[in-house]
Amino acid sequence: MTATQPMPSADVVFDTLFAYQRSAALKSAIELALFTAIDEGARTSSALAKRCGASERGTRILCDYLCTIGLLAKADGAYQLTPETAAFLSQRSPAYLGTMARFLLRPEVKGNFERLTEAVRGGGVAPGSDNNVADENPIWVDFARSMMPMMVPAAHAIADLVAGAEGALKVFDIAAGQGLFGIRIAQRSPRAEIVAVDWKAVLAVAEENAQAAHVQDRYRTRPGDAFKVDYGTGYDVALVTNFLHHFDPPTCTDFLRKVQAALKPGGRVVVLEFVPNPDRVSPPIPARFSLTMLSGTPSGDAYTFAELRQQLESAGFSDVSAHGLPTPQTVLLARR
Amino acid sequence: MTATQPMPSADVVFDTLFAYQRSAALKSAIELALFTAIDEGARTSSALAKRCGASERGTRILCDYLCTIGLLAKADGAYQLTPETAAFLSQRSPAYLGTMARFLLRPEVKGNFERLTEAVRGGGVAPGSDNNVADENPIWVDFARSMMPMMVPAAHAIADLVAGAEGALKVFDIAAGQGLFGIRIAQRSPRAEIVAVDWKAVLAVAEENAQAAHVQDRYRTRPGDAFKVDYGTGYDVALVTNFLHHFDPPTCTDFLRKVQAALKPGGRVVVLEFVPNPDRVSPPIPARFSLTMLSGTPSGDAYTFAELRQQLESAGFSDVSAHGLPTPQTVLLARR
Repeated sequence: MTATQPMPSADVVFDTLFAYQRSAALKSAIELALFTAIDEGARTSSALAKRCGASERGTRILCDYLCTIGLLAKADGAYQLTPETAAFLSQRSPAYLGTMARFLLRPEVKGNFERLTEAVRGGGVAPGSDNNVADENPIWVDFARSMMPMMVPAAHAIADLVAGAEGALKVFDIAAGQGLFGIRIAQRSPRAEIVAVDWKAVLAVAEENAQAAHVQDRYRTRPGDAFKVDYGTGYDVALVTNFLHHFDPPTCTDFLRKVQAALKPGGRVVVLEFVPNPDRVSPPIPARFSLTMLSGTPSGDAYTFAELRQQLESAGFSDVSAHGLPTPQTVLLARR
Repeated sequence: MTATQPMPSADVVFDTLFAYQRSAALKSAIELALFTAIDEGARTSSALAKRCGASERGTRILCDYLCTIGLLAKADGAYQLTPETAAFLSQRSPAYLGTMARFLLRPEVKGNFERLTEAVRGGGVAPGSDNNVADENPIWVDFARSMMPMMVPAAHAIADLVAGAEGALKVFDIAAGQGLFGIRIAQRSPRAEIVAVDWKAVLAVAEENAQAAHVQDRYRTRPGDAFKVDYGTGYDVALVTNFLHHFDPPTCTDFLRKVQAALKPGGRVVVLEFVPNPDRVSPPIPARFSLTMLSGTPSGDAYTFAELRQQLESAGFSDVSAHGLPTPQTVLLARR
């Protein structure tokens, strides 16, 4: 620093060192149903404390903190939801996202970030960390149960892209999770038949959801490792959602070749991914997702559109297109 | 949501749920001396990987992540420091703050935020959490060793406010920590004598620093509980830094009364604190500090200027004034 350069502010350093507190505060607010209580009319720390079964002091400090990170507003000592928290964090909203905190802040997921330095050194999930792609990893049951709200807009968009109201439609849904993508197609296309592949414990969640959606008679499952299960053949559509980012490009290409072989000629594959721009540092949420893959997988990554297109084309697909979503993910569509 | 209200973006929800990753990424970058390596001329992920002893893949993903949170910039595949990271996160800078990560991201400190919901329910540090104000808590040794860089500008400012170049100056420094505040006064005022109070293990750090600053012949210590130790009397200056926020207002007032009694008439007390505005939600860093006190103490808080003035005046002080710092803290000065 020379005398002519003014010292910059260190706020970004403090903000970043303390950033973990933001996640913890949001998790607590969700656990206490604080946003819902405000939406229902409790506005002061004492009214909120009563409604949430918490101390007045703790509630006041938590609400003030949430104001400082833009999740609440405060006027004359009364707290108000922001447009974002009203839409996504009040249980009265149909777009409620609060259940996601359960998966996204699981001890296993956060624990991997405690060993991030080791992951950077080694280039992948550190010894002692939770390997996302280990066989039958129970995190995927929680993923299936918790992450549905984030997937709803994607499921609608995918159904719009592939569902035909008439005619038979044979769909297989790889790493089906909560089953939403296939189920939504089955709801839209009365003659669609779905085959779902995932770990057995995860498919139990998908089957519950298929039952609740009244499509269970057209819903079949094939439990096991997506790389090893026999998919069968003659499918019109393959769904590959939240899957490719766990693996390196050659593995993705080999896998997509197997998918391609299960499709009819002219059949389509649907890929749902976090897709950063070619610069790899924007948009923020997709670009940041690489770090989660570094911390939790041996060689996964967030792939750019060009990289995904290359994986798809190497596997024998063509006509690769990208479709934006209101969530931070992107749908890719390609044809055998 | 009605049809006329466009759906807001859920990005702030995702950003907040993932915020803990920012702290982890910064901690890893500090541990790997990544910012220093960039400052020394390594700019690509492969050059940085070599310099930091890490994998190319891990280094690339970490650097890209740091770009997304404003701690690095990227152009043509080469990484650059920002003005903030050059000033505060390169070890080549005299204002290096990297050591703070060690204290601020200690497992005990972060662990308290894992039990934040309980703390909100109960109104203070949760059972099983690390009580900051427990006797001889070893976190304070780490605080003393790690947090010095943040305290340097405050120590200079305090010395400017109280040190007289001439004349005797009897100073006592309560919860002295690394000892910096008293040591800086001793360096500025050749006839100043310092008495430092803190837990015994913490005072060992202060004594090391007094020795390194060549003021050890005018540096005495009184180990023990700041509420119980006999301070002696006849002091010109009392330093009460990073202390009051751990306790509730009546405890602070009682404590300040004890401090007042140890001062000469006309003697001054110096208080260093995170001081939020009366709205309690700004400025962000001081306002957010309340949550750390909720999670780690039975009844601590960040106090506004009016609250601190009231504590000081109730204890018999007058002429209370506030003095801004380049760090997110504020110095208060008052006279017996």
